[in-house]
Amino acid sequence: MKILWNDRIVDRNECRIDPEDRGYQFGDGIYEVISFYNHQLFKLTEHMERLSYSAGEIAMDLPYSTEQIAENLKKLVELSDKADGQIYLQVTRGYAPRNHALPEKADPVLTAYLMHHPRPLDAQKTGVAAVTAEDVRWLRCDIKSLNLLGSILAKQKAVENGASETILHRGGTVTEGSSTNVFMVKNNTIYTHPINNLILNGITRRVVRDLAEKADIPFREEAFTTDDLMAADEVFLSSTIMEIMPVVRVDGQTIGTGRPGKVTKTLVQLFHEFVN
Amino acid sequence: MKILWNDRIVDRNECRIDPEDRGYQFGDGIYEVISFYNHQLFKLTEHMERLSYSAGEIAMDLPYSTEQIAENLKKLVELSDKADGQIYLQVTRGYAPRNHALPEKADPVLTAYLMHHPRPLDAQKTGVAAVTAEDVRWLRCDIKSLNLLGSILAKQKAVENGASETILHRGGTVTEGSSTNVFMVKNNTIYTHPINNLILNGITRRVVRDLAEKADIPFREEAFTTDDLMAADEVFLSSTIMEIMPVVRVDGQTIGTGRPGKVTKTLVQLFHEFVN
Repeated sequence: MKILWNDRIVDRNECRIDPEDRGYQFGDGIYEVISFYNHQLFKLTEHMERLSYSAGEIAMDLPYSTEQIAENLKKLVELSDKADGQIYLQVTRGYAPRNHALPEKADPVLTAYLMHHPRPLDAQKTGVAAVTAEDVRWLRCDIKSLNLLGSILAKQKAVENGASETILHRGGTVTEGSSTNVFMVKNNTIYTHPINNLILNGITRRVVRDLAEKADIPFREEAFTTDDLMAADEVFLSSTIMEIMPVVRVDGQTIGTGRPGKVTKTLVQLFHEFVN
Repeated sequence: MKILWNDRIVDRNECRIDPEDRGYQFGDGIYEVISFYNHQLFKLTEHMERLSYSAGEIAMDLPYSTEQIAENLKKLVELSDKADGQIYLQVTRGYAPRNHALPEKADPVLTAYLMHHPRPLDAQKTGVAAVTAEDVRWLRCDIKSLNLLGSILAKQKAVENGASETILHRGGTVTEGSSTNVFMVKNNTIYTHPINNLILNGITRRVVRDLAEKADIPFREEAFTTDDLMAADEVFLSSTIMEIMPVVRVDGQTIGTGRPGKVTKTLVQLFHEFVN
């Protein structure tokens, strides 16, 4: 496997991370997962903008301009023997003697490599199951940071219950999934949590909004409860890897008809057309 | 510098961390900071017990028994040319292809090395300044995990305001500091937040409780507000590195007389006797 290590593409085994890299000791870093379709990176500009946003919010300078980073990501994609896949990219604050406060000087460390999660086309036809859990993550989920233990423990709950995702709520108000944004459809209107510090401003979420507009489906950024969720006509998720994913069971209970609903199927179809 | 890397003490430069170590990509790991005084590790059993607790809470197996880990930490201390110092120890879940859910198989990675933060004896005489901030960390602060961005951002606020610590509160209720437990004294009684998911069960905090008992000073595990804090007779912090540290200013406002108070000075004195 090849890896982009700072600004060089090297054999994976050449890349060594320092045990005192702040990414390793504090999760002090940020990341993006970027899809490519037919060798073209999808929404690359938006991902680079969000990377900048996350870096700014933790007062970290990116080691290169986003244009330079984007160029290097394209070089990685050129190495892919598959037309579709993803790039995982992270930037940590780099080495400094351990101290909570920010170091005066540190050289951020960038790593990025190809992943090949297959497109979830079959699951999009049948829909998936989800469970719910209290959202115990920190109050800056707008930052796409490496502090992911809350998401890990939530995702693990899904796996242990034979589900694909855990839908999180704070005191009954649905926020997002462990690695997805969450939507419900009620009376042909899409609802999703508004953008604030409690959720990630998902790039696929923005695509959902744009596609809904194109299809003349009302799209409301309004928080809803787990009770609303269970009583919804349709529920779906969005993420770079899941794209748009119907949810047909939550906590063992059927949502709507138990099959992907009309609005969700329309969005999935439009998404496929958009990336093809 | 030497580093304990799993079960071998090697030159620091021999130790290489995999870029796909889950510690590096998710902050998926736990840690301890353990003081030694006169070449003796302080409260080693308690630190090993807490390491086990943290590992259990994130469903991670430690790579060795705590007895084996403790033996290797002692070997590290033998290498120290200073009588006093600290060991930083962390264990991450190790390498696995990136996926939020827990891997079926991964080999945890242990790293540990000597640190030499000088004992804060001068600061204990004068006391330090603190600031306050809303506690935005996750709701499992009882786990001593590597997800430390919330603590970093809080500590950085202290540094930028010329203070030594940031005292965190949730909606006005004081929880703990960014890397310390927090106490106030009112009418000769010590108050501190009870042990639950919102704070770390600090080992120095337990020493404070024991010393208070020894000195016949009432010790109440009751949450208090930032208003209570500002009106306290005395405020102090505890941590492995700060030991017991008087706080004489909070958010620019004087606490008590503006000098370390009677109860705090008694505890500092008893702590010094205890470790000597």
